[in-house]
Amino acid sequence: MITLPTFDDVTAAAQRLAGHAHRTPVLRSRTADALLGAEVFFKCENLQIGGSFKYRGATNAVLQLDPANTSVVATHSSGNHGTAIALAARDRGLRAVIVMPRDSAESKLAAVAAAGAEIVLCEPGTTAREATLAELLEREPAAVVHPFDDERVIAGQGTAALELLAEVPGIDCIVAPVGGGGLIGGTALAAKGVGSAIRVIGAEPALADDAYRSFKTGARQSAGVPNTIADGLRGSIGVRNFALLQRYVDDMVTVSEAAIVAAMRTVLEDLKLLIEPSSAVAVAGLLGAQLGAGATRIGVILSGGNVDIDRCPFLRGERVG
Amino acid sequence: MITLPTFDDVTAAAQRLAGHAHRTPVLRSRTADALLGAEVFFKCENLQIGGSFKYRGATNAVLQLDPANTSVVATHSSGNHGTAIALAARDRGLRAVIVMPRDSAESKLAAVAAAGAEIVLCEPGTTAREATLAELLEREPAAVVHPFDDERVIAGQGTAALELLAEVPGIDCIVAPVGGGGLIGGTALAAKGVGSAIRVIGAEPALADDAYRSFKTGARQSAGVPNTIADGLRGSIGVRNFALLQRYVDDMVTVSEAAIVAAMRTVLEDLKLLIEPSSAVAVAGLLGAQLGAGATRIGVILSGGNVDIDRCPFLRGERVG
Repeated sequence: MITLPTFDDVTAAAQRLAGHAHRTPVLRSRTADALLGAEVFFKCENLQIGGSFKYRGATNAVLQLDPANTSVVATHSSGNHGTAIALAARDRGLRAVIVMPRDSAESKLAAVAAAGAEIVLCEPGTTAREATLAELLEREPAAVVHPFDDERVIAGQGTAALELLAEVPGIDCIVAPVGGGGLIGGTALAAKGVGSAIRVIGAEPALADDAYRSFKTGARQSAGVPNTIADGLRGSIGVRNFALLQRYVDDMVTVSEAAIVAAMRTVLEDLKLLIEPSSAVAVAGLLGAQLGAGATRIGVILSGGNVDIDRCPFLRGERVG
Repeated sequence: MITLPTFDDVTAAAQRLAGHAHRTPVLRSRTADALLGAEVFFKCENLQIGGSFKYRGATNAVLQLDPANTSVVATHSSGNHGTAIALAARDRGLRAVIVMPRDSAESKLAAVAAAGAEIVLCEPGTTAREATLAELLEREPAAVVHPFDDERVIAGQGTAALELLAEVPGIDCIVAPVGGGGLIGGTALAAKGVGSAIRVIGAEPALADDAYRSFKTGARQSAGVPNTIADGLRGSIGVRNFALLQRYVDDMVTVSEAAIVAAMRTVLEDLKLLIEPSSAVAVAGLLGAQLGAGATRIGVILSGGNVDIDRCPFLRGERVG
């Protein structure tokens, strides 16, 4: 029997995070509005501490640990959750140990290390991550904060949408990317708590469409080891997350790898924002599908901005203008 | 005899621009704060309409034209001022004609065209620009809004700093890039009007250091045809702008081309913001010199975000993660 977080958990998380997480800005784009025939509001979690929304859920969880009984926090993560746990643990004077797949983005490995955490590498895929974390816990007791299948984490992630909906009245559709389902779960809780008529749409890479298949078939599916560029969305949807998906999410869409890259570029050129491929999945979902049909005010969660940009020559010193 | 704009002109411009220009966000960076041992506040004019602060000055000028006597607005511009005039003119139902040097960034030529303006190409350099504009005016009467040597434009540009100083109390140092001097002139007016102890620093590419040399020698110097990557700063400092520089600016610094590119990268990776090389000049000035010595709260104007990113392979579809 699992317990699901509620809207009250999201509002409690928002109070707990006040003074810890950034209240990130909401940006607009004339081009996006014209393209979609609606007003679009981008919630910039790429500008959150640690470069992604993950700091919300991690901090909401770590702030609820009893420091008298906890000295180490452990988790597995493709990167952003690991960085977030490392930062949240450091803020409270705790050690952090992060299990990371070998194919994690280099910038994310570097960020986790820079935040002072110990990294334990494992093979890619949910099974290997969880086995490695279990081994680690046998050697050393630690408080585990799962990257998405955790009530505290889901409630924390929901605070991004809660802020957006409080700042922008009348949003009638909200779009977020789906990996393990922490963000979409929290977003859906926040949206349906604010207004049951707000449509909640999850966007997923077609190459990692386990949540889409789970949503459509009504049975939780595994992602295997997906090869999508959206490195933050390679995990399979969690148990609590799937339950929230079934209960509160109105629709799911999938997007191609080319559409993800095109959306990254559009956001960089038009909004002047660096977003990671996982975030671009939501933008691609918005641009590609008829999500806006009927919607007049659309919210999009730009989930993170941690990108390996070493292959980008104009940043290495070549001429731009 | 020239007339210089005053602090009152900046506050009047701020009222005029309300509901027209974006009130752009002010962003923070833990990394920048740690690096400089001060609190740094980035005023994001790259998120302004048209992608740069230029929309402020252009709109402040165009809103003061008498529509009964004006049907065409003309100017010369390496790009951002042209886009801004085109947008401001279109908003008022006026035609715009923009003289642009042939070496303008492609993205800027495209933006001016997309905003509905007519483009007249000329050779690079201030002399050629002004000669081409003069020829044009012989053929067709038009209201000219100079890109920087214009009271209305300078006052409008100052509204970015005015907003920053209103939002962040206690700023003791403010840094802006210097090209023709519209932004630094307005910034200095705003800063000294808010508090005479606020230090105002101008940053310039070493390859286009006419304002720096003018400031140090006390006589206005020409830029020639500078080859800096900072395409927005290739013009020579204007007459009014030099007078304001002498009167209100506390210091000038110059930065190398490599430092400009490194600053662009730092801002992209750390702040997740795309800024153009001209904006990176101010960041490089901040990072490279001891501007922060004694300053505890530093404001930086991120002037624009219009970049040709076609040479960036990760945006073309190559793998990132």
